[in-house]
Amino acid sequence: MKDNQLILTLFGATGDLAARKLYPAIYRLYKAGNISDHFAVIGTARRDWSHEYFRDVVYYSIKDEITQAHEADEFLSHFYYQAHDVNDADHYQSLATLMTHLDNQYQIGGNRIFYISLNPVLFPVITHNLRNQGLLTDNGYNRLIIEKPFGFDEASAIELQIQLTKDFNENQIFRIDHYLGKELLSSFRKFRCENLWAHFWSKDYIDNIQISLAEDLGIGQRGAYYERSGVTKDMIQNHMMQIIALLVMEQPCNPSAEAFRQEKIDMIKSLKKYQTLDEFKKHVVRGQYKANRAKSIPGYRGEDAVDPESLTETFFAAHIELDLPQWEGVPFFIRSGKRLERKYTTIHIVFKAVDEHYAPNYLKIELDPQMRIQYYFNQEKPGYNTGSKVVPMTFQYRSDLETRIPHDYERLINGCINNRLDDFVHWYESKYAWQFIDHLYDYWDQLNGEDLAFYEALSPGPEAANELTKAHGTRWYDYQC
Amino acid sequence: MKDNQLILTLFGATGDLAARKLYPAIYRLYKAGNISDHFAVIGTARRDWSHEYFRDVVYYSIKDEITQAHEADEFLSHFYYQAHDVNDADHYQSLATLMTHLDNQYQIGGNRIFYISLNPVLFPVITHNLRNQGLLTDNGYNRLIIEKPFGFDEASAIELQIQLTKDFNENQIFRIDHYLGKELLSSFRKFRCENLWAHFWSKDYIDNIQISLAEDLGIGQRGAYYERSGVTKDMIQNHMMQIIALLVMEQPCNPSAEAFRQEKIDMIKSLKKYQTLDEFKKHVVRGQYKANRAKSIPGYRGEDAVDPESLTETFFAAHIELDLPQWEGVPFFIRSGKRLERKYTTIHIVFKAVDEHYAPNYLKIELDPQMRIQYYFNQEKPGYNTGSKVVPMTFQYRSDLETRIPHDYERLINGCINNRLDDFVHWYESKYAWQFIDHLYDYWDQLNGEDLAFYEALSPGPEAANELTKAHGTRWYDYQC
Repeated sequence: MKDNQLILTLFGATGDLAARKLYPAIYRLYKAGNISDHFAVIGTARRDWSHEYFRDVVYYSIKDEITQAHEADEFLSHFYYQAHDVNDADHYQSLATLMTHLDNQYQIGGNRIFYISLNPVLFPVITHNLRNQGLLTDNGYNRLIIEKPFGFDEASAIELQIQLTKDFNENQIFRIDHYLGKELLSSFRKFRCENLWAHFWSKDYIDNIQISLAEDLGIGQRGAYYERSGVTKDMIQNHMMQIIALLVMEQPCNPSAEAFRQEKIDMIKSLKKYQTLDEFKKHVVRGQYKANRAKSIPGYRGEDAVDPESLTETFFAAHIELDLPQWEGVPFFIRSGKRLERKYTTIHIVFKAVDEHYAPNYLKIELDPQMRIQYYFNQEKPGYNTGSKVVPMTFQYRSDLETRIPHDYERLINGCINNRLDDFVHWYESKYAWQFIDHLYDYWDQLNGEDLAFYEALSPGPEAANELTKAHGTRWYDYQC
Repeated sequence: MKDNQLILTLFGATGDLAARKLYPAIYRLYKAGNISDHFAVIGTARRDWSHEYFRDVVYYSIKDEITQAHEADEFLSHFYYQAHDVNDADHYQSLATLMTHLDNQYQIGGNRIFYISLNPVLFPVITHNLRNQGLLTDNGYNRLIIEKPFGFDEASAIELQIQLTKDFNENQIFRIDHYLGKELLSSFRKFRCENLWAHFWSKDYIDNIQISLAEDLGIGQRGAYYERSGVTKDMIQNHMMQIIALLVMEQPCNPSAEAFRQEKIDMIKSLKKYQTLDEFKKHVVRGQYKANRAKSIPGYRGEDAVDPESLTETFFAAHIELDLPQWEGVPFFIRSGKRLERKYTTIHIVFKAVDEHYAPNYLKIELDPQMRIQYYFNQEKPGYNTGSKVVPMTFQYRSDLETRIPHDYERLINGCINNRLDDFVHWYESKYAWQFIDHLYDYWDQLNGEDLAFYEALSPGPEAANELTKAHGTRWYDYQC
């Protein structure tokens, strides 16, 4: 049987992520022929929906993508719903019966993906029941898709890993970091490997690297989650670490998934820890947004479910380095925050200037709001020998039918179907990322909030973040804070 | 007195070039403040025009550029006309009187530029009279601007140089090659020097270089000239040689004009001559256009003033190399032709592929019809790991007011005013270019036309030109012939 014949069982089928991202992703894969007709989707959740109601929900979530009504009808007829209490063994039995039935009906032949889109505390009880109640197939693949957060620190992540690996082995666990589904990051290894940049990819030519993940939105209704997480656990431990690993990994060109992930593990493991509190204070900035009264935006401490004296950081910036000979002395300036002036997601590779008289060249890889790669270089200003100016060459993705760019979850579900583990986060990537994050908290615990820099909501961010770049004789190439 | 106070005397003031290019160029320089109010232009030619009539002619040639009527009126009031027979000594006396008068009237203080836009056979008689009849100033600069052709072979060029240097020394002779006035070529040294490309500029990284100067037009009314010239003397000896020199010269970064030109001389001198007739036949293609009956375009042999059995080439292509260690084994594929399918002027720098599995990166520098620089690189096709595609990053000049790009002659006249000899062709550049061209004719004389490849007018050109690139395992990156 082919990999793209399968039953996909979704825990959390009534949720927001499912409606916004997962059903459209599955539909696009189906339309593109990446899921065969031998498939079924089982939605589960606590609510008591009928198959028909479920199909209506899925219909509304995909309707903007429908080009042929009969194709959509056929697609929806493969969707089934079963109410489910994750703690009730009998419910798993009913699920097993339905799966056996659908497997026969659609001649699927055994492949199974279990996608758990629920609170991570529920992961272990589900995986235990999947195995113990006989929902795993013997004649096809069994794969588990889960999403962040994978623990809240290294200790809790280890505990979670121990639980999960009782029932699934590491190569059956597909940890999603949806940034790995983004076209520009997914294709980045080719960009690096197949082009002249390959000659430049080391401390010999690169002066510094900058990564900005900036949001203009606040925390919305996620106050309770955010109080435990802060931007550091919400964005740095996962997305930022993944981007760094993709940027600097060795030998990214067409290795096996195993070798590819090993290289990424090595990068994350090599993050230099700060040796003293002074060093830490000099290289790390955290901030929290205050109210913007002119725009009637509340401060973080005024958000729902947030402690009025919360020290949780909504902004993080740091100068970090890697403990690797090929990247010795190259600073990575990273930052992420909520309620900043603009939404932008950019990576800058700043090269050493060819000569002290000239401005440095740099690559700007922009994921948001544009999707493009730009090479900035020195060019003579038009006129009569009027000096140089830094200008971009631009490669811009077009989002038309001719160049249909897969959405993040579409690429990742397809990756899981095709067993492309390199699109997913290995346990050790997560573990070493936690080690780095935990050591930040060790320092913050000593500081008791004295370092927290407040910034106005919808401002560029705390000015302290500019000191990080200034100390290296450079600046943020996007927006200064 | 400042360099931009001057009398510019134009021989050939009633000509086509003057009206199309020179008057608008002078006007733009005036508007931009690059010519001061202390200036006068004297137009001369055989026809008997009045100052007023001359100013009307100039007015019509600049009228599309006029933004303020009173400024244009002021500008035109500096223009004077004097009928002139270049062989009549008395006429030079009248010219001298007018110059003295204008020099006083406008408080110019002595600077003089003599621009001879006439048949080159007249250059010596004019320069002799300028000196002998006392038209050269003692208290300012005397500069001579002339344009191609500078001789028809090395011997005639030497003879012309001997004549001219009786009256002007080499550093007073400004030989125009209008390609040197083009923004992208003029700024090319900065592009090379100040950017990452500087690391790549040698045989270690460059696989081949391609230059195409393709025209869709025929020879028009220039049959008599073209019969003596062919595309080789019309385009290769001058424009093509200049482009090659600019591309490969050493140390192009901010040297003196003298050093800059010496580097260019060295490049042209280093062109490898073909050692045998076989080698020549393998590396050089010449062609001539035939009629295109479907489009009612005559063949070259049917053009006015052309021998019906003419062997003159209207197309030239060659694989040439430089006898320099840093460019050893790097082929330059050059071509130029009339009556080709399209008009395009492009330079391709094709880099060695990073790995045999990948397509080479290349730079495309496009002078015409677009004005832009593109870097072509490998990028993953959007989709699910669907392979690589070569796509461009683009830097495009905008031709709006914000980025006013000087026209060729505007830049060059300004260059002469400011004594920027590096924008002009040195005698030795011309001499060594002729040596290379002459040796081509030595071979062609032996072949008696047997190698002439006929191509249909408005076709892509003779297929034989594709063999040049094929033999190196590559192709023309623009259009195949």
